[in-house]
Amino acid sequence: METYSIFRELAIILIAAKLLGILARRLNIPQVVGEIVAGLIIGPSVLGIVQQTDFLSQMAEIGVILIMFSAGLGTNLKDLKKTGAAAFLIACAGVVLPLIAGALLYMAFYGFAAVGTVEFFRAVFVGVILTATSVSITVRTLHEMGKLKTTLGTTIVSAAIIDDVIGIIVLAIVIGVGTGSGDTSISAVIAKNLLFFVVMGIGGVILYKIFQKLDAKYRHTQRIPIFGLALCMALSYIAERFFGVADITGAFCAGVILCNIHDSEYIDGKIIVNSYMLFGPVFFAGIGLKTNIQGVSGTMILFSVCFIAVALISKIVGCGATARLMRHSTLDSLKVGVGMMTRGEVALIVAQKGLAIGLIDSVFFTPVILLIIVSSILTPIILKILYRRNPVDTTASNP
Amino acid sequence: METYSIFRELAIILIAAKLLGILARRLNIPQVVGEIVAGLIIGPSVLGIVQQTDFLSQMAEIGVILIMFSAGLGTNLKDLKKTGAAAFLIACAGVVLPLIAGALLYMAFYGFAAVGTVEFFRAVFVGVILTATSVSITVRTLHEMGKLKTTLGTTIVSAAIIDDVIGIIVLAIVIGVGTGSGDTSISAVIAKNLLFFVVMGIGGVILYKIFQKLDAKYRHTQRIPIFGLALCMALSYIAERFFGVADITGAFCAGVILCNIHDSEYIDGKIIVNSYMLFGPVFFAGIGLKTNIQGVSGTMILFSVCFIAVALISKIVGCGATARLMRHSTLDSLKVGVGMMTRGEVALIVAQKGLAIGLIDSVFFTPVILLIIVSSILTPIILKILYRRNPVDTTASNP
Repeated sequence: METYSIFRELAIILIAAKLLGILARRLNIPQVVGEIVAGLIIGPSVLGIVQQTDFLSQMAEIGVILIMFSAGLGTNLKDLKKTGAAAFLIACAGVVLPLIAGALLYMAFYGFAAVGTVEFFRAVFVGVILTATSVSITVRTLHEMGKLKTTLGTTIVSAAIIDDVIGIIVLAIVIGVGTGSGDTSISAVIAKNLLFFVVMGIGGVILYKIFQKLDAKYRHTQRIPIFGLALCMALSYIAERFFGVADITGAFCAGVILCNIHDSEYIDGKIIVNSYMLFGPVFFAGIGLKTNIQGVSGTMILFSVCFIAVALISKIVGCGATARLMRHSTLDSLKVGVGMMTRGEVALIVAQKGLAIGLIDSVFFTPVILLIIVSSILTPIILKILYRRNPVDTTASNP
Repeated sequence: METYSIFRELAIILIAAKLLGILARRLNIPQVVGEIVAGLIIGPSVLGIVQQTDFLSQMAEIGVILIMFSAGLGTNLKDLKKTGAAAFLIACAGVVLPLIAGALLYMAFYGFAAVGTVEFFRAVFVGVILTATSVSITVRTLHEMGKLKTTLGTTIVSAAIIDDVIGIIVLAIVIGVGTGSGDTSISAVIAKNLLFFVVMGIGGVILYKIFQKLDAKYRHTQRIPIFGLALCMALSYIAERFFGVADITGAFCAGVILCNIHDSEYIDGKIIVNSYMLFGPVFFAGIGLKTNIQGVSGTMILFSVCFIAVALISKIVGCGATARLMRHSTLDSLKVGVGMMTRGEVALIVAQKGLAIGLIDSVFFTPVILLIIVSSILTPIILKILYRRNPVDTTASNP
């Protein structure tokens, strides 16, 4: 294949992804869904004018890393400390319940499996897909209603971020255990994972100090985002190569390490440009290229419906009940639960990871994509209804 | 190879390229030279910790396209019209003289070749490498001295831009003719090239109108730079695939088509971020990865010295004499000639293109890199001396 033929594929992907992305936004569906559908249309499922190639997969992998790095950079450790315990507990419940419910749902459809079997890990993996909240839709909705800077708003956002961190740890463990060969015991895998997070903790403090010094001296210069990106790639590699932890976990950690330096927003700005200009569309359209429409059977449609129901209800119940326990009013607790139920890119990235390591089939992209669509449409509608019933949070608002 | 291993290579390239780039700037050498040396050090020539892979070549190719697109976007058609004929004639002489001198130099070293033989095209290609002025060093120097907005400054910048356009046309023809199989006559290749530029001219006007409308409606939104990038990639592909014209020519044309819409700077800003964050370092370090230090013989060192002398003198004489004919004073004409003698990225990109199509050997990177270093160091020094002799241009200054 001639080198220049990559330009044909990239041009088609960019145009199709952007056009369908714009269309999706007009329909109040997340833009990424449009980009995925673009991939479906130009890919083997419909037109067949673009094929998945090694090059496109590698570009997509960089796209994933950039998204996770950006998510890590968006973590605000200081804010997290403020909202503290409440957000943490809400996040925990919002991870555990969907994880268990998702796994049970899979088993209900595809047979119960003994703990430790591959089939068991498939089930757990389906649960893991359900753990990560995508708070962007909620943030946009709360912002529109002027409710983002309230205690309730901050709690939801903090819980969503903590839930990302917990989700990434759970993912790391499940991947480690689920793909471990017969030789590696579960305890060894967990030990390796723990070691990774310990190394990240210690190394992270040192790296943070280094970047803080760089930042003080060279604020807003090209070197800060470039070294940041290099750190992201280095940790992605180190995570997989030496600890058997997913590369996306390393990228996320790199983001968290840098999230409190002054230039973190500056770095994120540059990363976002790289992401939306090329790598992002290649990743999301790539999902469409790989999605197997022919494989969608009657069972899969039924599974998708149940999957979506389980995904939404388990978050509302898990997060809502915990919020209620933390002495929020019932209505406010419901707002928290609904605010936490949206899923987005991270769910897809996790599913994609599962496909890459052979734990799940590409046919499972369909329910995940549908979940993103449904939750993104429902969340703003329900949140607005809840706030109309009781415009002021029972809990005090921040100024 | 595991997908995640690309992150190891990219991380090493980013860190090495940025560190050496910073060092180069401290030494008043262009940053790209530092990045190339970084590639030499991490590549097979020295440490051998990074190997050239298909993936890295493809990333580098995108890097080239982005640089040429950006160069096209920087063309200001309105300014060009103003300085008009003078700049055009200076540019023509600054292309023709180095082209002939470079070809003759090659023949002097490696034997005279009959017109039409492969050896002949090798010689012509070495001449083509010498055609493109890199005006950035001159612009920075003139800017520092407050002389950029003078008639002389504008003339130099305009001539450098026109010289890019002529250079790209010459490159297109030489590649077309030099790589044409026995069946294709020179006239057929030239016809194909002419057809390409005619199609670009007509299609360009239409595309310009479309983008102008898009721009008026959606200024400063993501879609403008994304569709711009898609256009760049589409034209790169179309140029090679259907006209046998180099992809970089297509990318440059895409830039020129969009250079006069309102958002051209906005597009360029996004392209530059993509370029310096990842694709640029991969391209320049990639040159280092491919450069064959072992191949540098005594002859090559002597060739390099002559190559640099020919490169500098042919531009000074070609551009300077033409400026003198246009009734600039002798000193001002010398300023024009010196201002036009710097070479940069485009010379490397042309050399790289020659390597890709098998017209020249990677050993020729060495003289090109040395030319960039020497011309970039000499130009500011000589320009400052010339301006010290006569601080005011003889020609009237613009306000």
